[in-house]
Amino acid sequence: MSLLVVGSVAFDSLKTPYGQADEVLGGSASYFSVAASYFAPVNVLAVVGEDFGDDQMRVFKNRPIDTQGLERAAGRTFRWRGEYSGDMNEARTLETQLNVFEHFQPKIPSAYLTSEYVFLGNIHPRLQLHVRRQLPRAKLVACDTMNYWINGALDDLKETLAAVDMVILNETEAQLLTGFRHLKRAAAALRALGPRTVVVKRGEYGSCLFQNDSIFFAPGYPLEEVLDPTGAGDTFAGGFMGHLARMNDLSPPNLRRALVYGSVMASFAVERFGLEGLLSLAWSDIDARFNEFKEMTHFDV
Amino acid sequence: MSLLVVGSVAFDSLKTPYGQADEVLGGSASYFSVAASYFAPVNVLAVVGEDFGDDQMRVFKNRPIDTQGLERAAGRTFRWRGEYSGDMNEARTLETQLNVFEHFQPKIPSAYLTSEYVFLGNIHPRLQLHVRRQLPRAKLVACDTMNYWINGALDDLKETLAAVDMVILNETEAQLLTGFRHLKRAAAALRALGPRTVVVKRGEYGSCLFQNDSIFFAPGYPLEEVLDPTGAGDTFAGGFMGHLARMNDLSPPNLRRALVYGSVMASFAVERFGLEGLLSLAWSDIDARFNEFKEMTHFDV
Repeated sequence: MSLLVVGSVAFDSLKTPYGQADEVLGGSASYFSVAASYFAPVNVLAVVGEDFGDDQMRVFKNRPIDTQGLERAAGRTFRWRGEYSGDMNEARTLETQLNVFEHFQPKIPSAYLTSEYVFLGNIHPRLQLHVRRQLPRAKLVACDTMNYWINGALDDLKETLAAVDMVILNETEAQLLTGFRHLKRAAAALRALGPRTVVVKRGEYGSCLFQNDSIFFAPGYPLEEVLDPTGAGDTFAGGFMGHLARMNDLSPPNLRRALVYGSVMASFAVERFGLEGLLSLAWSDIDARFNEFKEMTHFDV
Repeated sequence: MSLLVVGSVAFDSLKTPYGQADEVLGGSASYFSVAASYFAPVNVLAVVGEDFGDDQMRVFKNRPIDTQGLERAAGRTFRWRGEYSGDMNEARTLETQLNVFEHFQPKIPSAYLTSEYVFLGNIHPRLQLHVRRQLPRAKLVACDTMNYWINGALDDLKETLAAVDMVILNETEAQLLTGFRHLKRAAAALRALGPRTVVVKRGEYGSCLFQNDSIFFAPGYPLEEVLDPTGAGDTFAGGFMGHLARMNDLSPPNLRRALVYGSVMASFAVERFGLEGLLSLAWSDIDARFNEFKEMTHFDV
């Protein structure tokens, strides 16, 4: 089934203890759509500037990603510069240039209006809601968010949460948004705000899925080295939503498998700089790592 | 099968955001043996002072815990005072009175010499090695340790590690001891020091088991509230080793189940202050939570 993502496309400049990269393609919509495109065709809704070249465009066009919704605006593409140090759990933002992203008003191409799976990436909750409202027949709408909106646009965020089926967010964001330290309570509080399903990302510790009275945990994939954690969360969401769209199955067992596919894709992303780890995977790579998750979590009662 | 633990018996005074407790029974040997005693008879090797009363002794005697090895020495029992704040991941030690523990020289009663499962709790690695050497026929010897010995008695610790089958330690300890940030490398480095099997405890994020090329992850039990994390690690080890001793089965599938039993017991411990959460469990409580872990981690490929 068709899958739509709205989010950012950016030029990222990154420094980690393992190296650096300058002005590489990044942003939530890029990581999400590249990851999800291994599973299902993706419609991408984002804005780029006049400096967005053929090389960058090819990253989308080489894959089953529809770029009708990739608006080209006058000015420069969104830029982010960040640095990871120590345990690399959090980036230190050194510079943000919103550029064309500042006045981004998502315009949904008519061909996108039938998208059945929708991911509202981390943009202003008012824009998320604007997109959501134009897709009333979607089977599943999930949203992300971040501390910036929790602190600065909480009322808008709550309105968005009330209008979506699922929220996918980091553990610290779940804690900040609800005031609850422990996930079980935080998830219950999030569900009370609207989304029936809550997915909490815990970085290297994996992720968990809360639905009705059921909780499911997936560990993080045990890597020997993490080169660049940028985009891990959006890549996770891409694998997760991609699997749901591919199977067109929202049953609890399939949501569990989707969570594992999310972890699988995120593990590939952080092994390389930028999008590099996601550009030339074979399905057998994804499959093999999915099966490793089964092997690493299975026990007989 | 018989299970021996050597460690500390203490009077703990604790403060957490949820309340406080003064001079309650604690110490690694206490948490371990109470938890393990739900699974198998336990032989406890530790020292207490003249102030150790009938009430405290009853905690052991009411359970299948042999106290021949609980030496009573002149002086006062070991005391620890600590405080948890914020996310309660680590205690701030306010006071340590070693008292009779300072000159503890474990003397193994002859009845204990046939113990087949042995847990060397967190004491000086020289004492751990001393005990280990007197139990050459044990089927499985596991040891714990802590930052204090890693920083202050590394050579002794390495000698102990070379003489045990398994090490059970916290993630931060594994990182400190090996210099590796990521668990997969840290576990390989630990195994190179001697123990065939490595168990890493990750607090609320659960635990993992490294054996040959196999890795197994168990999540932490999702509690609504953690009242007092004291003793969680020793309780985990008690459930883990207790299950192994009960089944007398060191196969990989049984080690996985043991890890889950460790998590189950730790979850009961932290729900109450001190040992309280461990004193009146029914087997059906343990069983129900074990089955919940299966439900929370299972997915179909």
